[in-house]
Amino acid sequence: MKKSNVYSIPALKRLPAYLRELKRLQAEGQLRVASPALARALHIDTIIARKDMEMLGVVGSPGVGFRVEELIDGIETFLGWKNSSEAFLVGTGDFGRALLGYSGFAAYGVRIVAAFDPDPVEEGLEIHGVPVFGLSHFAHYTGRLGIHIGILCVPDDDAQKTAELMVDSGILAIWNFTAHTLQLPEHIIRQRVNLGGDLAVLSVKLAEKLRERKENP
Amino acid sequence: MKKSNVYSIPALKRLPAYLRELKRLQAEGQLRVASPALARALHIDTIIARKDMEMLGVVGSPGVGFRVEELIDGIETFLGWKNSSEAFLVGTGDFGRALLGYSGFAAYGVRIVAAFDPDPVEEGLEIHGVPVFGLSHFAHYTGRLGIHIGILCVPDDDAQKTAELMVDSGILAIWNFTAHTLQLPEHIIRQRVNLGGDLAVLSVKLAEKLRERKENP
Repeated sequence: MKKSNVYSIPALKRLPAYLRELKRLQAEGQLRVASPALARALHIDTIIARKDMEMLGVVGSPGVGFRVEELIDGIETFLGWKNSSEAFLVGTGDFGRALLGYSGFAAYGVRIVAAFDPDPVEEGLEIHGVPVFGLSHFAHYTGRLGIHIGILCVPDDDAQKTAELMVDSGILAIWNFTAHTLQLPEHIIRQRVNLGGDLAVLSVKLAEKLRERKENP
Repeated sequence: MKKSNVYSIPALKRLPAYLRELKRLQAEGQLRVASPALARALHIDTIIARKDMEMLGVVGSPGVGFRVEELIDGIETFLGWKNSSEAFLVGTGDFGRALLGYSGFAAYGVRIVAAFDPDPVEEGLEIHGVPVFGLSHFAHYTGRLGIHIGILCVPDDDAQKTAELMVDSGILAIWNFTAHTLQLPEHIIRQRVNLGGDLAVLSVKLAEKLRERKENP
């Protein structure tokens, strides 16, 4: 698996979109697809689509393109989604609940197998079919089930200490939905969704645009 | 307001975190704060905090730092959040509902004033107190209320046509929560939360990490 060490982040981010398009083609009974068609579906350049396929190590036939099934398999293998990754979520407020109810993750090979909350949790509680436990059980279950992915949805002020608990429990990758920048050991993989930060960028750009309009109507 | 034309995206993304820290200090009755303390709270370098304050155009006094109130005001003005921005959300599936219930946006000065759904909507429907209308009413309400921000939460396959409807209705800034890369006129402001793409990056990095561990236990 030497190939999978060579990748670009933008290319990785495109893989789910390819997968979605390929599954659509498969559902329509299409067996083969060429790079230009994939490129069109993703609104990208054909050259980029070709490079992405190269990264996957899937080889097409000149003139007839790639086998749809082989490409799907290639992407899922590349992403390690053949064996669905299991994750724990911490924090069952508005946003955590939403993620538990979000059916989209299944399509991306990630399954949230349990949720935890710092507040007391009534015995047998489930949200969208996912069992919820008190945070004091986190370390125990992480070790027992060999979970590596933690999804962090606690209030911002609890983010750092909860992330530290995750790391101490054996979590290797944290998907951080809080506004807090985590200070963690270098080797921990982090991915962040900073909704407040996104809104800040959107607001400032919009204000600028509205000002321009006023000045040059 | 010439100053506000000069900004960096990373600095903008930090502003909500400053705001949170400043409001915490204000609640504790603290009147002044110096850059090193702010830098510590955000786990960043003091030089970066100083540059960020410079961008805001707020001037501190040597030795005693900045007035907390003035900084809060400076950030909210900079972000245009003094007048809360109003937004429309389209798509009331799992994720859209979650965003409607997410109290966090208020803190960032954004208020979702109505939601719309492509599917038929029963008269008088509200989700988390926000009224929901059929998508056919979108253009009318956008014009009438002068809304400029659209939040896109429809299924991926409806993303492009819904975004086009938003733009045709007068929306200038789209916050895109779908996996779809939108093709829109250049002048439309876009911000994207690509959950599938994030998961792809996380999965591949994790697989790499686990492989390393196996090879060098």
